[in-house]
Amino acid sequence: MNLKENNASLEGTRIIISGGGIGGVSAALALAQKGAAVELFEKSAEFREVGAGLQIGPHGWRMLEQWGVLDIAVNAGYLPKAIQFRDAVSGDDLLRLSFDEDFERHYGGRYLVIHRSDLLSILVDAARDAGAQLLNNVKVVDAATEHEGDCVKVKAEIKDQHGLRSVEAEVLLAFDGIHSTLRKKFISDQPVPSGYVAYRGTSSLAEDKGMSELEDVLGYIGPDCHFIQYPLRCGELLNQVGVFRSKNYFDAIDNGAVPEEWGTNKELSVAYKHCHQSVQSRVDYLWKDRWWKMSDREPLDNWKKGRIILLGDAAHPPLQYLASGAVMAMEDAACIADYAADYVAENGEVNWDHILDEVQAERIPRCTRIQTTGRFWGDLWHESGRARAIRNELFRAVSGTGWYKYADWLWRYDHRERAYVKNPDLGKMPEELKDIVGS
Amino acid sequence: MNLKENNASLEGTRIIISGGGIGGVSAALALAQKGAAVELFEKSAEFREVGAGLQIGPHGWRMLEQWGVLDIAVNAGYLPKAIQFRDAVSGDDLLRLSFDEDFERHYGGRYLVIHRSDLLSILVDAARDAGAQLLNNVKVVDAATEHEGDCVKVKAEIKDQHGLRSVEAEVLLAFDGIHSTLRKKFISDQPVPSGYVAYRGTSSLAEDKGMSELEDVLGYIGPDCHFIQYPLRCGELLNQVGVFRSKNYFDAIDNGAVPEEWGTNKELSVAYKHCHQSVQSRVDYLWKDRWWKMSDREPLDNWKKGRIILLGDAAHPPLQYLASGAVMAMEDAACIADYAADYVAENGEVNWDHILDEVQAERIPRCTRIQTTGRFWGDLWHESGRARAIRNELFRAVSGTGWYKYADWLWRYDHRERAYVKNPDLGKMPEELKDIVGS
Repeated sequence: MNLKENNASLEGTRIIISGGGIGGVSAALALAQKGAAVELFEKSAEFREVGAGLQIGPHGWRMLEQWGVLDIAVNAGYLPKAIQFRDAVSGDDLLRLSFDEDFERHYGGRYLVIHRSDLLSILVDAARDAGAQLLNNVKVVDAATEHEGDCVKVKAEIKDQHGLRSVEAEVLLAFDGIHSTLRKKFISDQPVPSGYVAYRGTSSLAEDKGMSELEDVLGYIGPDCHFIQYPLRCGELLNQVGVFRSKNYFDAIDNGAVPEEWGTNKELSVAYKHCHQSVQSRVDYLWKDRWWKMSDREPLDNWKKGRIILLGDAAHPPLQYLASGAVMAMEDAACIADYAADYVAENGEVNWDHILDEVQAERIPRCTRIQTTGRFWGDLWHESGRARAIRNELFRAVSGTGWYKYADWLWRYDHRERAYVKNPDLGKMPEELKDIVGS
Repeated sequence: MNLKENNASLEGTRIIISGGGIGGVSAALALAQKGAAVELFEKSAEFREVGAGLQIGPHGWRMLEQWGVLDIAVNAGYLPKAIQFRDAVSGDDLLRLSFDEDFERHYGGRYLVIHRSDLLSILVDAARDAGAQLLNNVKVVDAATEHEGDCVKVKAEIKDQHGLRSVEAEVLLAFDGIHSTLRKKFISDQPVPSGYVAYRGTSSLAEDKGMSELEDVLGYIGPDCHFIQYPLRCGELLNQVGVFRSKNYFDAIDNGAVPEEWGTNKELSVAYKHCHQSVQSRVDYLWKDRWWKMSDREPLDNWKKGRIILLGDAAHPPLQYLASGAVMAMEDAACIADYAADYVAENGEVNWDHILDEVQAERIPRCTRIQTTGRFWGDLWHESGRARAIRNELFRAVSGTGWYKYADWLWRYDHRERAYVKNPDLGKMPEELKDIVGS
């Protein structure tokens, strides 16, 4: 398989990528397809993703298509028939959005769910086929932009089993995740804990009497918790995610303490007691040996320092509620490759200062909007009392294609339109939602 | 004008009505049209209604039509083009429901607004034309059902300028209002204060530069307050109602005290400070010499004691949020007249025990539903914070005919279908709204 494009316009351009998650590898693929000489450094011994299922909305679907890996991803994943929301307490149906022909026509893509490690493998193989160098056991520990006369380059310190050494490139993409090393060069901030914890689990779907008919992405939403279920791997596996508010976390915070341990199995054992039996009965299927404390970071208004740019979770880790964290990183990857190639096509040469400026002009407002909306979206899922009942009625009122109006900004996005470059205000929360976020 | 029906099936039946408000006079009209000998006693010196504008939804429209007073009521009132809700803080449009041909087809009637005293005058004239005796300065102070052999009658003590005397009839309808004297024979309950107070006012519309284009019923809803505006008297008058939460009331309650005075002008002067200028600027137009402390009562599960039945506000005073208090009393009036006539048509004689049982079997669940939903509806208008923003989005989502599904139970009601007799559960709040009411 040779995925390199005929129009290999970045031929000869040297690019370093720090981090071999979905975002970094996607960038390696997208840029190698444009002809760039890509070196990707991943500190782990192998390319793997923690977690289980991953949702790829139509905004991600179109990039998989563009990169030529859609068919193989679809074959490894699962195409749900719809997304459904139910009230976690009553079990009542609230909303169902069908991923049918109308959806595909409207969004230019379908909705795919796939095992994180399967998608990563597919992207790694494709990036290598396109000519990118992907190296394990190498960590980028530092980087700086250097000027030598008219020549600007980025020099990165990398560390592997042989020790430290330097590598040079025209640009460095820091896709090194929410705990990014390179972000520290920009700001000394910390992840913002949401106080919610996620448990995940996969189990055999075929033998699961209660669930074997499941064909949808099913989300139960309720006070202080939610629970997501969908098939994976052609329907062989059931993927489940239980997310709940940690009382231990908030109790400690309220007492002015830094919470020691939170989201433990003990908390899990009571987290769904107020929920419908169809949720409670599924808690046993979650893995108990590992849990994820959900955090994001405050949006950052600059991702670029010389020839270093933060991208993916290093730049804009969101909460998970819009199921778009991985797609955002893929959008970053597609955006930088396309904007660079567009620039070369127009000007006959590469100009990274200009390209990185354009990338962040597009991507910062887009990702800020997803980060802030993600927080709001989580709050909306976890409402209790009167707000919960009104939320339920709203969901019922817009069930079906009535939902499109809330999803269009997210799912119809195409970085090639440069919509946020043209109008950065698109990155702001809509006026009518500000009260929700602000209060 | 002779409004007596040809099918005067209640000929010779003697009926006493206590209270000459819209409900009592409607009952006098409806029963006199069926041929009954109606005596109505009103303690005041004249038939008049306190307050100003009154909204008559299509559920009331059809009764005015049935009683032959629709045209004269429409000529005295105003037919708004639509009902609109706006957010009281931002001033933003939330919802608009047009009273157009589709509305009229769907609900079998239009939406009328009319001055309370104009409607009462029209009903008084029509009731007298139909042969009812309507007497002022007479108060029904007590009543009891008496059995003499097979003969059952109700004996009422009435008091006028000459002192006390007794009158007899086959049945007594207690339409004596929220502070009903006769309700005390059933239960020793008290009105339930909502802690909200209403200011009203009418002013000349034509000279009112900011408002002269108004053709709709316009409601601003916001945290702890709302503000209603609509034209009256063929558009000559502007009717305004400002309702707000009295801090004095709730502060006193929180301190375990019985609030002395609440809802004063001083409270009014700050009640809309958080609202949009288009609301704040209208407060000056409200009457300051009088205000109404809004109360309802708990639903009662029996309205009938021998031959005495509580109806109208004496039986089921609602909060004003569904704008149906007067129509509920008109429904009671139409219901008792029609059920009595139906019984005679079927059985050749009147049987008041049976008829009153059927009336309350129909009316109690219907009115209970309006009372409980009215409380919920007020809470929904006055939401703040996140619940307000979700409510706004819900209103936007169902703007237009999407609203029908919430109004059908209220506005498509026809007592002749005996829907609540057949299914008393219709009187319960829908399952999905219980959480709102309960919390």
